[in-house]
Amino acid sequence: MERVGIVDLGSGTARLVVYAYEPGRHYRLVDELREPVRLGQGLAASGRLEAGAVGRALAFLAAVQDYARATGLERIDVFATSAVRSAANAGELLEPARRMGLALRVLSGEEEARYGVLAVAAGFTLEDAWVMDLGGGSAQLSRMRGRSFAGGGTYPLGAVRTSERFFAHDPPKPREVAALEAEVLRRLREVIGELRAEALPLVAMGGTVRNLARAVQRARRYPLDRLHGYFLRTRDLEELSERLLRLRAARRRRVPGISSDRADVIAAGALVYRTLLREAGLEGLWVSGLGVREGAFFRHFLPPPHRPACVRELHLTNLEARFPQPPAHTQSVRDLTGRLFAALAPRFGLGEGDARLLDAAARLHDVGLALGFYDHHKHGAYLVLQHTLAGWSHREQALLALLVRYHRKGRPRPGALAALLEPGDEERLLRLAVLLRLGEHLERARSGRVNRLEVELGAEEAVLRVGGPENPWVEVWEAQKDARLFERAFGLKLTVRGL
Amino acid sequence: MERVGIVDLGSGTARLVVYAYEPGRHYRLVDELREPVRLGQGLAASGRLEAGAVGRALAFLAAVQDYARATGLERIDVFATSAVRSAANAGELLEPARRMGLALRVLSGEEEARYGVLAVAAGFTLEDAWVMDLGGGSAQLSRMRGRSFAGGGTYPLGAVRTSERFFAHDPPKPREVAALEAEVLRRLREVIGELRAEALPLVAMGGTVRNLARAVQRARRYPLDRLHGYFLRTRDLEELSERLLRLRAARRRRVPGISSDRADVIAAGALVYRTLLREAGLEGLWVSGLGVREGAFFRHFLPPPHRPACVRELHLTNLEARFPQPPAHTQSVRDLTGRLFAALAPRFGLGEGDARLLDAAARLHDVGLALGFYDHHKHGAYLVLQHTLAGWSHREQALLALLVRYHRKGRPRPGALAALLEPGDEERLLRLAVLLRLGEHLERARSGRVNRLEVELGAEEAVLRVGGPENPWVEVWEAQKDARLFERAFGLKLTVRGL
Repeated sequence: MERVGIVDLGSGTARLVVYAYEPGRHYRLVDELREPVRLGQGLAASGRLEAGAVGRALAFLAAVQDYARATGLERIDVFATSAVRSAANAGELLEPARRMGLALRVLSGEEEARYGVLAVAAGFTLEDAWVMDLGGGSAQLSRMRGRSFAGGGTYPLGAVRTSERFFAHDPPKPREVAALEAEVLRRLREVIGELRAEALPLVAMGGTVRNLARAVQRARRYPLDRLHGYFLRTRDLEELSERLLRLRAARRRRVPGISSDRADVIAAGALVYRTLLREAGLEGLWVSGLGVREGAFFRHFLPPPHRPACVRELHLTNLEARFPQPPAHTQSVRDLTGRLFAALAPRFGLGEGDARLLDAAARLHDVGLALGFYDHHKHGAYLVLQHTLAGWSHREQALLALLVRYHRKGRPRPGALAALLEPGDEERLLRLAVLLRLGEHLERARSGRVNRLEVELGAEEAVLRVGGPENPWVEVWEAQKDARLFERAFGLKLTVRGL
Repeated sequence: MERVGIVDLGSGTARLVVYAYEPGRHYRLVDELREPVRLGQGLAASGRLEAGAVGRALAFLAAVQDYARATGLERIDVFATSAVRSAANAGELLEPARRMGLALRVLSGEEEARYGVLAVAAGFTLEDAWVMDLGGGSAQLSRMRGRSFAGGGTYPLGAVRTSERFFAHDPPKPREVAALEAEVLRRLREVIGELRAEALPLVAMGGTVRNLARAVQRARRYPLDRLHGYFLRTRDLEELSERLLRLRAARRRRVPGISSDRADVIAAGALVYRTLLREAGLEGLWVSGLGVREGAFFRHFLPPPHRPACVRELHLTNLEARFPQPPAHTQSVRDLTGRLFAALAPRFGLGEGDARLLDAAARLHDVGLALGFYDHHKHGAYLVLQHTLAGWSHREQALLALLVRYHRKGRPRPGALAALLEPGDEERLLRLAVLLRLGEHLERARSGRVNRLEVELGAEEAVLRVGGPENPWVEVWEAQKDARLFERAFGLKLTVRGL
């Protein structure tokens, strides 16, 4: 595994993230240092970085260097964005950083936007979209076409900057709110016109939107603790922003989901998003947990154009690689399950999406073994739910977790995850779970003993004939126990026999 | 890591467990095959193994061999217990097993009891106890003295055997219940006298007691999903056994916690335990999740006398070894936290148990990183709760999980685990958590930068002076943020300064 550190000196937060990866195959975040450095503090008024802010940023960089020495991290990619880009005295930070031996790059607005688009191309299955990245200093709004950056602009609408410039009171006065709204409209008029003209999804990234989405999830008791891939609805954001704009910062800090670091600038950020969504007439936006830092990482991880061929596959592989399972057993379950699916799919109208889900569940069914043998079906479901399975919708992620949960025993029930499912998904869960379980039980001895499987579908009965070099009667005996669940799922009696 | 398989052909269940281990250091269960083979079926009536039972056992052994071939498992230790020991036609199983190349050992009652005592010596901090192992065929009741086997007996009171012999009806008639009770009293009269004479804890193992304990935990909504180390109270068992004895097997199967494999014999097993507890005048028994198979495993894992020097240490090491953390950082947090504790303990009356908890929490605080960086404090708490931390009470395990949970942020609260705590534990949690968090924050750059720490305790203020080769002001800045929590915990203002 290789390692690379990415340092992002934003206007609000400074962060080091460290990735471990096998180039082009899989990656994971292994560490993070984060400080609310507020590099952009006071910049809106003076156009200059304050001495205190520069000192905090340099202290952070020194800590990064010590971290790198202590952990043997050799490659670090350091960049700064809006605050440094727009400060008249940027040299006061850049020079000492260079003397420390760090090649600090100042990203242009377009570079920053391109990194953001890379993150969306790696985190969503969308071909075309608008991408919004709202940071502390600036906002990038870009057009992604065919998964590539296709133009966009940078606007001085970051949460720290707009708070400082427009909100002199706490909470802001109505006229301050109106002034910021007018500013957003003025700056974004043209692009809002384009958004209205071409109804594409909007993907948003950065700490502000993650924080807003988390607050909405908490308020709505969203059953999944995942931000990436969450659809933040305009009407929920309207409600939340109204609330945030009426509260003092000290009270905003206590709104569940709002992080205390951001409480003083979140209201301005919420207002920028609200105005954009309202004026563009969108029903909501997709939250991306991947952002500029991930975009920067993908330039190390993948050769140009730095995009994964298949988003779903990449993130599934990330999870598999992190929690290795017995490979031969997993492959056998995949094969057996696939054969059962092929036999039953036509009659029961199971489609491509179902095949994809079942195959992914077969690949992941034993990931929980990494945590311990007992209850590994529950551990596996926990891992599937805790992992960012980018490219898979939250509904699909819930179904995958449930399939893993019920791959050995128990009656499949969605429980708290029901809120993420669609009509028909309970039946889908039951059907796919019983196929996965038959695959698992036919692989009872985890030895690939069953290598032949014939399925005969009658009007009232399904007969599985299984064979292999040994008489697989332990497997026959185990699989036969699934007959009741099978009948409930498919309305057919199940008989399992040796070939 | 070495691997060994242990096969246990019990009267009810046949099982292969596979352990991976570093001899003498740590181990874990990595796989299991389990079949309700019912080898002892019909044995009580005829004194012989039935042909069907022998066939099922041999099929299971063939599956074990295929498993071993497929997974490259070279060492397998195969033993049988009561059913084979007492069957007139044991050769009908032993001969074919030998022809398969398996050295199947038939354990004597005393060997079986000795293995059980080994399991207790490795799973509890007790020096002296009674150990009960109730299987399908027989029950061993042994005296453990100074962590060694010191005599005991084997009784024909296994759950399968007593069900077959005494319970002809479903549910059993009152006279059948009375007859089994009389039998238990008759068989155990002498040992019950000894139990009454010497009030020692009783530790119980085997599938029956695990199943009974799980049912009680479900009924009482016990907040921890751990059987090992659970204290099953006599009055809860009285209530449960009354209920089980009144229900038909088909209904017992649906009692939450009762496994469907055991539903037909669990009532007899419950009655045996109830009678023993009642007559011995005990308030309850300790459930051991480790049993005869673990005892057999410890003979591979540890040199004679096959007992770990320190039970708590072994199981903590098992968890650490399974989810490795950055060793230098963990050691630094341990050191810093230890120094803070030493400075505060005298004034606040913190004792040895607190020191042990805090040190264990420092050792485990980053185990969750194995699951992912984000939310690793939550992942860590999950892992601590899911692991069998033998030697640590459930209360201690809950406190450890909570310390890990709150080692980075959030206000420490016990939540659902409150039911496991004692008076004063909420304050203890708060105090230990803030010390751990200070250690973590002083190790912010994970580089051991802070290597000097002086603590000055005044009447109203605590001053921490921190130093190292670099000016550690990121650390000072981070640690200072804990001042509010520190004040809440200790009633002292906190000031953190560079040395």
